[in-house]
Amino acid sequence: MSGVAAALQEALGDRVVTDPEVLRMLATDKSGWWSEGGALALVEPQSLEEVQAAMRIAHEHGAPVVPRGTGTGLAGGATATPGSVVLGLGRMNRILEVSLEDELAVVEAGVINQHLSDALAPHGYIYSPDPASKAISTIGGNIATNAGGLLCAKYGVTREAVLGLTAVLADGSVLRTGRRTVKGVTGFDLTALLTGSEGTLAVIVEATVRIRPIPAGQVETVSAFFSDVTAAAAACAAITAARLRPAVMELMDAEAVAAVSAYLGRSPAHPGAAYVLVQTDGPGAAAEAAGVLAVIEQAGGGGVEVSHDAASGEALLAFRRSFHPALEARGEVLVEDVCVPRSALAAMFAAIERISREHRIAIPTVSHAGDGNLHPNFVLPPGAVGVPDEVWAAADALFEACVQLGGTLTGEHGVGLLKKRWIEGELGTEGLALQRRIKAAFDPLGRLNPGKVY
Amino acid sequence: MSGVAAALQEALGDRVVTDPEVLRMLATDKSGWWSEGGALALVEPQSLEEVQAAMRIAHEHGAPVVPRGTGTGLAGGATATPGSVVLGLGRMNRILEVSLEDELAVVEAGVINQHLSDALAPHGYIYSPDPASKAISTIGGNIATNAGGLLCAKYGVTREAVLGLTAVLADGSVLRTGRRTVKGVTGFDLTALLTGSEGTLAVIVEATVRIRPIPAGQVETVSAFFSDVTAAAAACAAITAARLRPAVMELMDAEAVAAVSAYLGRSPAHPGAAYVLVQTDGPGAAAEAAGVLAVIEQAGGGGVEVSHDAASGEALLAFRRSFHPALEARGEVLVEDVCVPRSALAAMFAAIERISREHRIAIPTVSHAGDGNLHPNFVLPPGAVGVPDEVWAAADALFEACVQLGGTLTGEHGVGLLKKRWIEGELGTEGLALQRRIKAAFDPLGRLNPGKVY
Repeated sequence: MSGVAAALQEALGDRVVTDPEVLRMLATDKSGWWSEGGALALVEPQSLEEVQAAMRIAHEHGAPVVPRGTGTGLAGGATATPGSVVLGLGRMNRILEVSLEDELAVVEAGVINQHLSDALAPHGYIYSPDPASKAISTIGGNIATNAGGLLCAKYGVTREAVLGLTAVLADGSVLRTGRRTVKGVTGFDLTALLTGSEGTLAVIVEATVRIRPIPAGQVETVSAFFSDVTAAAAACAAITAARLRPAVMELMDAEAVAAVSAYLGRSPAHPGAAYVLVQTDGPGAAAEAAGVLAVIEQAGGGGVEVSHDAASGEALLAFRRSFHPALEARGEVLVEDVCVPRSALAAMFAAIERISREHRIAIPTVSHAGDGNLHPNFVLPPGAVGVPDEVWAAADALFEACVQLGGTLTGEHGVGLLKKRWIEGELGTEGLALQRRIKAAFDPLGRLNPGKVY
Repeated sequence: MSGVAAALQEALGDRVVTDPEVLRMLATDKSGWWSEGGALALVEPQSLEEVQAAMRIAHEHGAPVVPRGTGTGLAGGATATPGSVVLGLGRMNRILEVSLEDELAVVEAGVINQHLSDALAPHGYIYSPDPASKAISTIGGNIATNAGGLLCAKYGVTREAVLGLTAVLADGSVLRTGRRTVKGVTGFDLTALLTGSEGTLAVIVEATVRIRPIPAGQVETVSAFFSDVTAAAAACAAITAARLRPAVMELMDAEAVAAVSAYLGRSPAHPGAAYVLVQTDGPGAAAEAAGVLAVIEQAGGGGVEVSHDAASGEALLAFRRSFHPALEARGEVLVEDVCVPRSALAAMFAAIERISREHRIAIPTVSHAGDGNLHPNFVLPPGAVGVPDEVWAAADALFEACVQLGGTLTGEHGVGLLKKRWIEGELGTEGLALQRRIKAAFDPLGRLNPGKVY
């Protein structure tokens, strides 16, 4: 056993795991990507003080620390690096406080996203950020990646929901940021800086998050098929242009529709059909859904389905939610996460079609159309180990097209390991240098999640 | 003329002002506070390149730089420091782009907040952040202070509206942050970090901001008087508890009501009356206003007025908007800006009453009750030069009470010069040290707005 693992065990006892099989699995996450691995120990603290103790010991031994939730990341951001101590926050899963009057909750980092909403539901409240992984991912991990989801266009991403954080710096000292108030401008906004920092600045241990009343009225859902993805994207643009503000607006291209249809054993509407699903909520939900329906019919949508309550709406959403399982069943994929200005959505889909054709690789794509965020999934050749060069070449072309359209390489998954190769292209050399100086202000010895992002 | 002023004039000609009377006025802002002053020159650039040129020259001469918009700050954040070059961005006032499809605008930093909304109105769009100064303050200045306003509880503060920034660092290099997309997690969120940084990190030159459709439906307004501020605060809490989400919810205490009544030549409802004004908007506006009215009546509101359109709603709001003019007419005031969790609103008002009594100073107070943000105004004794010690003592007591209630010392005005004395109390010694390291990552020589905030 390494010196740091022994020291951790002496201080923290059975919070420390050194079982080689457990450590081996820390090299991967839901992206399917494997890092070089080589974690020396997994520590699963149950209090702020235990996080501090672990950090101090790692600091004394010069060991890198990789913070990790439940390992559901899609960019390799929480995978073990060689010689690292992995700090698993999953056992810090207590909801410490719910204040309906202040519309906030205080949670430990390891609370599962859905568990908070479950706890709030009897009071008529919800925690809005809803990454597709919400049933299995932690709020701490969501904050580390500034996770998005289906509801973002109307209700904002994770950053908008975080009021304050308790975090531990690389040397074991505690940093408290933000506040319990909805406004506040005392000092730099370190809460926002830590949100999306992917474990490179500090270990997030506790969060004060906004909660919201579940909107009044019924959830209305409208879904339709379109002849092709261009027509579907045009329908989405027309919905925004009509000043309708859906809670959910999802678009699936023909490859994605075909994959899900095959997975569910359904026959698709027709070959090449793309799919759009729109949900409205709140007091104007019915009127907005009627507006959405009118736009969809005018834009040539067919096979329209309409539902007037949340339960049947969720049944319609099941088609969209089956996308990731359908692809997992087909084998390994490289999940991309580009985001373009909404006006460029159709152009980005066209670019994906072109890249798919030119590089001869299937790229089924789903999109949170309300915010221009697309998830092109590069399906890897059977038996591929890691990502083959020709898939990287296609991904390079995708990134280039995205940036030319004014987009960004990651909308909600983070940079992690998988998108490192493009970060300088987006931030620029000087921007990247400044980011590194900020990193050094928090973590001068570069011990926190080294090798990720930068 | 100083060396730096001469060099600036040589490079930038009539963009440079050295008239002593103009320079003298740069020592103050709308807070009425005067800094030590001593600006060597005012530069009014009209392009990014001119900003860069001015910054490079200041850098070479070792001169501090103070970025300034139209000087409407309420915390002294943009007042001249001795030997400084003041960079006035007011002439960079072009709206560079409006994209309805992407729901964004690109503006130079000197664009007046209201001018953007005026330009958007014919398209049915609005720029939501609405500080009370919106008719005279610049968007760049709003971003520098993360300005709030009346609509924040529903539509968010300035930070939520800023997608990306172009800024110039102390050495003249250009930093571009953020993006044109509504989501994005590539690198640390420097857009959020610059928002509210009060000119201490970089000079904001251009901003990409979100715009929103003007909500459908009529604006509904309900106003009422209450026997005292505690009853009024309880009514506001009950409105939130009823899950109503007003666009505007303002509360004025008895001192504020009396001051405005006297200013407008009206007799107040009755001595000691506090005032609440609530506006609802969007498709559910009428139903929400009915809900608000029911809560207000149940909570003992009297003298109720109701309006069903934006114009008559604005007429009702005039009573609230007359607060600052009413106080200006009475002489000098120290405007505070504390923000507490909504649940502590009544307790904060009680603390203000106590402090007013104990320190024998009038503290008329208005509140954005939807977000727990209060503006206690310390009325200075006639003929006071600066803030007398006894007023500072009362302000100290206010800050202490606010922090004990879980609040923050500034909700939307910034720290500037006026709130520096309390910042360590809120951020803690280590938190403050980290903030200073971040400052150094941007501005290692400490040239940008020195003496402010930190």
